[in-house]
Amino acid sequence: MANPTATTRGLADVVASPSAICFIDGDQGVLAYRGFNIHDLAERSTFEETAYLLWFGRLPTAAELTALRQQLAASSTLPTPVSQLLASIYAAAPKALPMDALRTAASALGLYDADGDDMTRDANVRKAIRLLAQTATLVAAIDRIRKGKTPVAPDPSLSLAGNFLYMLNGARPSPTAERAFDIALILHADHEFNASTFAARVTAATLSDIHSAVTSAIGALKGPLHGGANQAVINLLLQVGDADPLAFIKDMIAKKAKVPGFGHRVYHTEDPRATHLRQMSRELCQAAGLTKLYENSHHIEEYIKSEKKLNPNVDFYSASAYYAMGISPDLYTPIFAISRMSGWTAHVLEQYSDNRLIRPRAEYIGPQVPQTYVPLDQR
Amino acid sequence: MANPTATTRGLADVVASPSAICFIDGDQGVLAYRGFNIHDLAERSTFEETAYLLWFGRLPTAAELTALRQQLAASSTLPTPVSQLLASIYAAAPKALPMDALRTAASALGLYDADGDDMTRDANVRKAIRLLAQTATLVAAIDRIRKGKTPVAPDPSLSLAGNFLYMLNGARPSPTAERAFDIALILHADHEFNASTFAARVTAATLSDIHSAVTSAIGALKGPLHGGANQAVINLLLQVGDADPLAFIKDMIAKKAKVPGFGHRVYHTEDPRATHLRQMSRELCQAAGLTKLYENSHHIEEYIKSEKKLNPNVDFYSASAYYAMGISPDLYTPIFAISRMSGWTAHVLEQYSDNRLIRPRAEYIGPQVPQTYVPLDQR
Repeated sequence: MANPTATTRGLADVVASPSAICFIDGDQGVLAYRGFNIHDLAERSTFEETAYLLWFGRLPTAAELTALRQQLAASSTLPTPVSQLLASIYAAAPKALPMDALRTAASALGLYDADGDDMTRDANVRKAIRLLAQTATLVAAIDRIRKGKTPVAPDPSLSLAGNFLYMLNGARPSPTAERAFDIALILHADHEFNASTFAARVTAATLSDIHSAVTSAIGALKGPLHGGANQAVINLLLQVGDADPLAFIKDMIAKKAKVPGFGHRVYHTEDPRATHLRQMSRELCQAAGLTKLYENSHHIEEYIKSEKKLNPNVDFYSASAYYAMGISPDLYTPIFAISRMSGWTAHVLEQYSDNRLIRPRAEYIGPQVPQTYVPLDQR
Repeated sequence: MANPTATTRGLADVVASPSAICFIDGDQGVLAYRGFNIHDLAERSTFEETAYLLWFGRLPTAAELTALRQQLAASSTLPTPVSQLLASIYAAAPKALPMDALRTAASALGLYDADGDDMTRDANVRKAIRLLAQTATLVAAIDRIRKGKTPVAPDPSLSLAGNFLYMLNGARPSPTAERAFDIALILHADHEFNASTFAARVTAATLSDIHSAVTSAIGALKGPLHGGANQAVINLLLQVGDADPLAFIKDMIAKKAKVPGFGHRVYHTEDPRATHLRQMSRELCQAAGLTKLYENSHHIEEYIKSEKKLNPNVDFYSASAYYAMGISPDLYTPIFAISRMSGWTAHVLEQYSDNRLIRPRAEYIGPQVPQTYVPLDQR
């Protein structure tokens, strides 16, 4: 095709590539990683098992899972120059957005990775494991440093979820909090060719390195139309406060403002992740004495469903769930990045295994070619 | 569409979006920015004019061009924390790849930008201008720091091309070198939805910030299937050395190695940029006493054309041209980034102006859904 003419805006429903990682049926509300239904994984697996599944295509044996946990624990300490980078970022820019710091630090990890620019599958798997462990440490360290606290060294005896909450708060989490956070990580781990994963694959498809690819993904996740939405949801809920949530939402709709956390490019029914997150939000809000936060969320859900025919997406109930766990709102998107790092790296490994440059065309709508070049002194 | 079935690998010839920036006719070998043929721009404009054209959609008046030059000059000094970051990168990793340092530093620029997270068009235009000037300074500083030299402060009286060569070498370039480099910047400034620009647009389409978008682009450009190719070309030419270039190439082909710098996803005839770069390579190689480097390139071109029916792309003759200018081979891709920063930012501005999330689908080829979840102790 020499001169393309037909355009599908945003590549909606355009198939970019085959993939064996994630199955979504948007009409039936089915999500599966490597064939395993998200409900089974959320209820029965751990995040480490799920990450193994995403990377290797099958569930690990007990020995393989133990080995992965050890590798993650061994990788959870940051290279010294990256720890120093975080400190210098917040010394120079105390209000730096966590996602900007995370993007910069993830890029910097590529400078110091033990496997350098080795592009073998084995080296890239090792980089993926390191990136997952390091991202959890980075996010916890960013939160502590910006709050004037000393970063907490990782505890290799803990799960990734438990270790993150420990590094964040400086105290071991309750089993309930650890399990809730673990489930949240499972639910956010992958979602086919979502925008950040697609950004990672576009980057990797030039045969650039895995750190470049996940840096692209972090940048894409930051946007309010993607990972940034869960922060927008909690900001909305906090603005509602003790007011009538429906009056607030009706006012937003009257002003043509978009209510965050609803609707999805792919799902036309309930997002199966929202099913778990709703329940998690209810339980965590009740335990934290924030019942009204959950109830307001639920009222808003019912109203938007009936008025707009839109279902809550993964961001809607994760907001109140994380809030009930005492996590700062602008950390919700970085937490999403911790989880999605497993999916991003799985997709990068898959892209490398059967690569083709991702390079679409534009429909040209600019001035007629050629325009006459008028010299500067005659303009 | 619920369950996609047909796949176009790598989105080849798939139209992702309308765009008014760049016109390519791959069959006729026509390239135009905003309607202006690349030949007119290469022969008659300057890089600053071309950048203005890409951003604002028309050529500047003399006053507008003067104002842009002043803004670029005023933006060419790096924020202190970013200068310190470069120094600390090379202190900790003396062999850090320039593209990895550039990606990390470009991401860091977002932390310290005077316009913060202001997403208005005016603020994003200011960020685009700053990013272009800063990228030239970054690349020159990276080269000097890694060679143990002190970075050279920018000279606001020089053009961007002249200033870059001045900051790189610590001496004002000859008018011939400055003009050759300026033309190279014009030729590389934009190329429709090439992989790095597409990575920038995918990132920007979540309404993430412009620094996130260009950081994605730098990561994508790094890959050997994209910007990394010009470095592969010079490595090939240096390996050939005084040997018979055709014997060398025939041996590569016999070993099924890909000869870098040939063929293009979009062009099926001579890449119009190669026309200029071939001439530039000839002149610069002659002036530098490297006639054999040009002649070998030309012999290889003729051979690949006749044997493989492939034309040289933008990377083939830029390699020998930059080499003749005394530039280190692993700086060729970062130099590409300086130029393409103008196009990346123009595309990001266009994406913001009429945004839609870029989120394609995958063709699922994984295990049947659902797989039976076997508990860990029974695996």
